Amino acid sequence: MKIVVIGGVAAGTSAAARAKRVNPEAEIIIFERDSDISYSGCGLPYYISDIVEGREDIIIYTPKRFEDKKGAEVRSEHLVEDILLDNKEVVVKDLKTDEVKNIRYDKLLIATGASAFLPPIKGSELEGIFPLRNVHNADTINKFISDKKPKSAAIVGGGYIGLEMAESLLDRGIEVSVVEMAEQILTNLDDDMAEIVHDHLKDKGVEVIVGDGAAEFEGDTMVEKVITQSGCKLKANMVILAIGVKPNVELAEKAGIEIGKTGAIKVNEKMETSVENIYAAGDCVESKSMITGNQVWIPLGSTANKQGRVAGSNLAGGNDRFKGILGTAITKVCDLAVGRTGLTQREAENEGYKVISSVVKAGNHAGYYPNYKKINIKLTVEKDSGQILGGQIIGEDGVDKRIDVLATAIHNKMKAHELIDLDLAYAPPFSVPKDGVMVAGIVADKKRNK
Amino acid sequence: MKIVVIGGVAAGTSAAARAKRVNPEAEIIIFERDSDISYSGCGLPYYISDIVEGREDIIIYTPKRFEDKKGAEVRSEHLVEDILLDNKEVVVKDLKTDEVKNIRYDKLLIATGASAFLPPIKGSELEGIFPLRNVHNADTINKFISDKKPKSAAIVGGGYIGLEMAESLLDRGIEVSVVEMAEQILTNLDDDMAEIVHDHLKDKGVEVIVGDGAAEFEGDTMVEKVITQSGCKLKANMVILAIGVKPNVELAEKAGIEIGKTGAIKVNEKMETSVENIYAAGDCVESKSMITGNQVWIPLGSTANKQGRVAGSNLAGGNDRFKGILGTAITKVCDLAVGRTGLTQREAENEGYKVISSVVKAGNHAGYYPNYKKINIKLTVEKDSGQILGGQIIGEDGVDKRIDVLATAIHNKMKAHELIDLDLAYAPPFSVPKDGVMVAGIVADKKRNK
Repeated sequence: MKIVVIGGVAAGTSAAARAKRVNPEAEIIIFERDSDISYSGCGLPYYISDIVEGREDIIIYTPKRFEDKKGAEVRSEHLVEDILLDNKEVVVKDLKTDEVKNIRYDKLLIATGASAFLPPIKGSELEGIFPLRNVHNADTINKFISDKKPKSAAIVGGGYIGLEMAESLLDRGIEVSVVEMAEQILTNLDDDMAEIVHDHLKDKGVEVIVGDGAAEFEGDTMVEKVITQSGCKLKANMVILAIGVKPNVELAEKAGIEIGKTGAIKVNEKMETSVENIYAAGDCVESKSMITGNQVWIPLGSTANKQGRVAGSNLAGGNDRFKGILGTAITKVCDLAVGRTGLTQREAENEGYKVISSVVKAGNHAGYYPNYKKINIKLTVEKDSGQILGGQIIGEDGVDKRIDVLATAIHNKMKAHELIDLDLAYAPPFSVPKDGVMVAGIVADKKRNK
Repeated sequence: MKIVVIGGVAAGTSAAARAKRVNPEAEIIIFERDSDISYSGCGLPYYISDIVEGREDIIIYTPKRFEDKKGAEVRSEHLVEDILLDNKEVVVKDLKTDEVKNIRYDKLLIATGASAFLPPIKGSELEGIFPLRNVHNADTINKFISDKKPKSAAIVGGGYIGLEMAESLLDRGIEVSVVEMAEQILTNLDDDMAEIVHDHLKDKGVEVIVGDGAAEFEGDTMVEKVITQSGCKLKANMVILAIGVKPNVELAEKAGIEIGKTGAIKVNEKMETSVENIYAAGDCVESKSMITGNQVWIPLGSTANKQGRVAGSNLAGGNDRFKGILGTAITKVCDLAVGRTGLTQREAENEGYKVISSVVKAGNHAGYYPNYKKINIKLTVEKDSGQILGGQIIGEDGVDKRIDVLATAIHNKMKAHELIDLDLAYAPPFSVPKDGVMVAGIVADKKRNK
């Protein structure tokens, strides 16, 4: 059996490794257009901030090591240009030699990922303007910072990558401004929660502009200024474009594979596309929301990894299922951890739920124990049933724990008033006897019954 | 309505505060034999280690402040000597004046807690030998350390309090030995997990002796040595007795209230005892294991708090239920966090389950992110059904999170293979794409199906 995998980052390598374990006889080949495979996209901001020492630290496997360890063949710098369904072949171009070959497959995985969305802004050709999607982008940014020593940077886009880059550039001693078109940064949080992060960035000296987009980049050969749509001029010796990402579906689309309403490739629980023997996984596919049952596109490394594992099993003849996602995510923004799971209040209302939310402040651990911090918890609950729909938590410590508890609770369709029944671990260095998630549950339940 | 509460620490004060909120008209009076109420028993080791600055830090409310804030009357240094069921009265002695009075109640809560178990060891009358159960004990220990500057200490008992005290005394520059009668320290962990803590204590310079008990304390007026049952002689300028605790049930027993098989007061889900209008909560009662359905006695501050809340509601006419416990607990031992939830493998086998366990090492977060630590995870699963019965986790960081995720999973009767379906929060500073609890689930499931 011959398995071809298109794309060698999170989903592709997970799938290849898993398929080889399930069926050691299978011949597996990964094509990746980049020279790097198996790197941590989520680690790129930390590579730029110097928190991560070398580029090799965020590359989990080189092609050579992956081949040795996992037994799948890796051809990096190979671009798959076409999928020929009738022949069960992919058309692959070696980007070093421009040689094109047709390669047969029995089973195919599309793991083409997502790309930075690059809007057509005037002046985009100036030097010093960068997206951040792969290790090469990060290398280029690092080299630019070392060579040009920029004093100021503008980040276009106030989502996760934008804000992680704000922190990274602050760490490098650069003055940072963030421009976000929406009325708030972190649009996947409710506005009251996003405001906490907004204020924190301002406290750290970041200029945060919301409700305004980048209209033009000005400069001679190097970028010097960002002109916003409202006419603001921001000094910027460099610009990071972090407006968003889009799924890489062109190859699948051209082959006639069904694309979902979200714009990403449609797959079933087995990660099968609309075409037999062709699977897809990772940032290029949509996923089922375990709450609403609807298809959503929320590209994240953790999801890509798990989907790759499921696809890998099934490619090799297994019968694994990917159950869906809750939209759980976390990011670090300077001193704050910012987590969410399930639906925000706004998302829930947009889905037609009648909801109430509780907002509480709670301790990360006992007040008398060192490094005591307050955590902000927002719990969103269906009004009639009390079922927990989502949680948002922001604070300096203990956020990841409580988001994971809520994610596990939502997975199990727990109701707000049941959180107090959880037997969570208490000792002064770790928690308080009645944890904040419990209090949030009690408050939400009370509000619901008012 | 008049509510009398016997005991003013965790369960008693929680209940009184809750009852007053549910029924602001109720007259509530707390009798506490100690002069302190509402202190954090779990915080005492940190008060001794100087991590917590003053005694007032671990006292959440003084009697006066509790009265002002919560509206319940507090009579500290009042010992309840008898419960007269027929008259619905308690016999209370004012310990400052020796005056004895009968006080009527409509509803009564017994929250008498637990006491240190003090074995009859020869030489126990020597100076420098202390239990640790209340703030006075801690004050006495603190004064002793300041005045006498002991060079060495022996801790009799290798449970949570014993090991927390080992850390506290090390922090004060004292050489520490721990003597544990059982064949391992931390008998509520499996031996393979307890060994990790044992080795860590040894690395920190603590002499740990297992399978041996204290037979005699030697010294002139002050303790100087502990002689063990096997004849070992340990230098000890002070001794902490941390052999265990026993529930304070004498008062309830004398009144004819039913005591359970565990030796603690028997209550139902509403925290009612066998006698109408009399409730009990906290360290003096037994609880239902949510796994086995059996009654167990695992006295912990988090449980006392929640039971107090339920009892308080019901005392005031509400209809709350305490659903039971999983035996979740956590402690900090020097650099290690040591957590458990559900049943250990040994406990599960003793309960008659046929089980398998997976033991995995996992990262607290991305390997390239600073402060990377390995975590040891042991997951115990029912062989036939795959249902998760328990988890034990030990490591320097991220233990509390994963124990709470497992506690939430066990609460919801999840199976090992379902852990991978959880949508937990991933970003490099907080986790890895496929978290250790998921890996433990996968490994356990594989082992189960072998």
